[in-house]
Amino acid sequence: MKKEHVEQIQKAIKAIEERQIDNIFFVACGGSMASLSTGEYFISKDTAVPAFVYTSNEFIHRSPSALGENSLVILRSHSGETPETVEASSFARKKGALTIAISMEVESPLCQNAEYILHYNYKDGSDAIDGELGIFYTLLFRILKLITDNEKYKRAEKQLENLGSLIEKNQEKFKKAADQFGRKNKREKLIYTMASGVYYHQAYSFTSCLLMEMLWINSNAIHAGEFFHGPFEVTDYDVPFLLVVGEGPSTPLDLRALDFAEKFSDKVEVVDIRELDYDGIDPDLKEYFGSALSGSVLRLYADGLAEHTGHPLSVRRYMWKMDY
Amino acid sequence: MKKEHVEQIQKAIKAIEERQIDNIFFVACGGSMASLSTGEYFISKDTAVPAFVYTSNEFIHRSPSALGENSLVILRSHSGETPETVEASSFARKKGALTIAISMEVESPLCQNAEYILHYNYKDGSDAIDGELGIFYTLLFRILKLITDNEKYKRAEKQLENLGSLIEKNQEKFKKAADQFGRKNKREKLIYTMASGVYYHQAYSFTSCLLMEMLWINSNAIHAGEFFHGPFEVTDYDVPFLLVVGEGPSTPLDLRALDFAEKFSDKVEVVDIRELDYDGIDPDLKEYFGSALSGSVLRLYADGLAEHTGHPLSVRRYMWKMDY
Repeated sequence: MKKEHVEQIQKAIKAIEERQIDNIFFVACGGSMASLSTGEYFISKDTAVPAFVYTSNEFIHRSPSALGENSLVILRSHSGETPETVEASSFARKKGALTIAISMEVESPLCQNAEYILHYNYKDGSDAIDGELGIFYTLLFRILKLITDNEKYKRAEKQLENLGSLIEKNQEKFKKAADQFGRKNKREKLIYTMASGVYYHQAYSFTSCLLMEMLWINSNAIHAGEFFHGPFEVTDYDVPFLLVVGEGPSTPLDLRALDFAEKFSDKVEVVDIRELDYDGIDPDLKEYFGSALSGSVLRLYADGLAEHTGHPLSVRRYMWKMDY
Repeated sequence: MKKEHVEQIQKAIKAIEERQIDNIFFVACGGSMASLSTGEYFISKDTAVPAFVYTSNEFIHRSPSALGENSLVILRSHSGETPETVEASSFARKKGALTIAISMEVESPLCQNAEYILHYNYKDGSDAIDGELGIFYTLLFRILKLITDNEKYKRAEKQLENLGSLIEKNQEKFKKAADQFGRKNKREKLIYTMASGVYYHQAYSFTSCLLMEMLWINSNAIHAGEFFHGPFEVTDYDVPFLLVVGEGPSTPLDLRALDFAEKFSDKVEVVDIRELDYDGIDPDLKEYFGSALSGSVLRLYADGLAEHTGHPLSVRRYMWKMDY
């Protein structure tokens, strides 16, 4: 990791250490919120510290009573310009919370607002450890280590060194299946996604940012545990599902949903995170790395759709084109 | 309220009073989870007590570290037989948490599992105060009063007496618009819902239980604050939205989404909760009652679709018909 990044994380962790932290808020919009949700998942699973995720505007308007001087607020925006998230950082600071902004643009309004900044590289060819995954998971492992003092987070941080090669290997491994998915589904106007546990957030991100935003394909990210309590009644032979089978404690939920979906739909695609290459990762750390790696694997399935529909992922009709 | 119900609530509140409660978990599936989410919303907004919502199976499999002897776990199942929720109640008790089950069936496994039971009447013609809304909101107001000692929750509880007449008046008020909605949308295969704040859970319920489950119409409950961070790119002249404009602090989010949706879609239906009849409700309590009343108003929009599609809300193809 670059020295600049190491120092930024150290500073942020030191600030957390010096403060009595009663709760952690993860605040962002869209794909950035989904990424931060990974933090909420592991904090709530591994520690007793209350952790919450809010989309930035809901955070401001609800104004949770627990937000105050003993709160840690972690915000994230790719450009650092997302107006709601910029406003949320001002709001959190006014409440006296400790604020950390994660962004690729350190000169952005979000980074100017927040007390601590974590910069990440984006598509500049540098090592994955300096990219959004490397920076965020390093922060997350440090926070988990700080709270629990469990040695495994040190190992986890060390094993982040494998991130770059694992992304590459796993993209290679899933490339063909993802392309086939694109070919088979190129005429679909609606594709449901499904997942549970930490992978639910990947499904949400895939639904909101890749299918709906970038491909204009209708979708809904269904929680595999919720599937049988309403949504499953839409299942039919011609209803497509992209189902993420997770590597983690809620895998049985995914498998139950998969079993049903495959029985009644001819269009079920499975992305089985258990089948990822976890070379260099200890067995007890697979869930952390499964969640870190699943995004780059899922991305290929959107690439497949883009390729076969002739609709590039960069096309927008509203975003960046007008005020709204 | 029936004496039996009064006593059940008193017992539950006494148990909460006698225990050090560090956090509150709301645990259920589908529509019941959406209803309980109202509790999480107001607890997090009005008090600093950490509150969480989990779909039952995710709760068990994630096994949040904060769950323990100082936790209050509120569970809900209409029949009291939802297997995941029954299991969640056993799980919570094993962890030493204080458990309260809300159900219409007191002889059910859920109620046998939980320490405290809150029964509600269902479609038996009795007063609304003894129905699911009356029972749940009474509990909620008592818990909020207990935590904050704010007098307004006493007033709120008192004003629940108006619930029955307000449901009736508001259903009367929205009946025609809802029927027209059904007529206009009877050929739609996909209808998005949108809301924010406490009303998001109503949109979720409408999407999962009414559109997808009961009407086999594709849907996704989009948070109005998330709309502009992905989902809005699917908006087009022929994409239908059912948008709930809330009565509460996040109304500006709804209005912004509405403004955009109406600009680019010819099929936007608005259910404006601000326009409800709040007769007998103090102005500072409108949000509590808006959320309580919105479900019975939204239900009419599903009735409208059922009427004009000829697809009764009682029809299922999988639920109750097979094991899954």
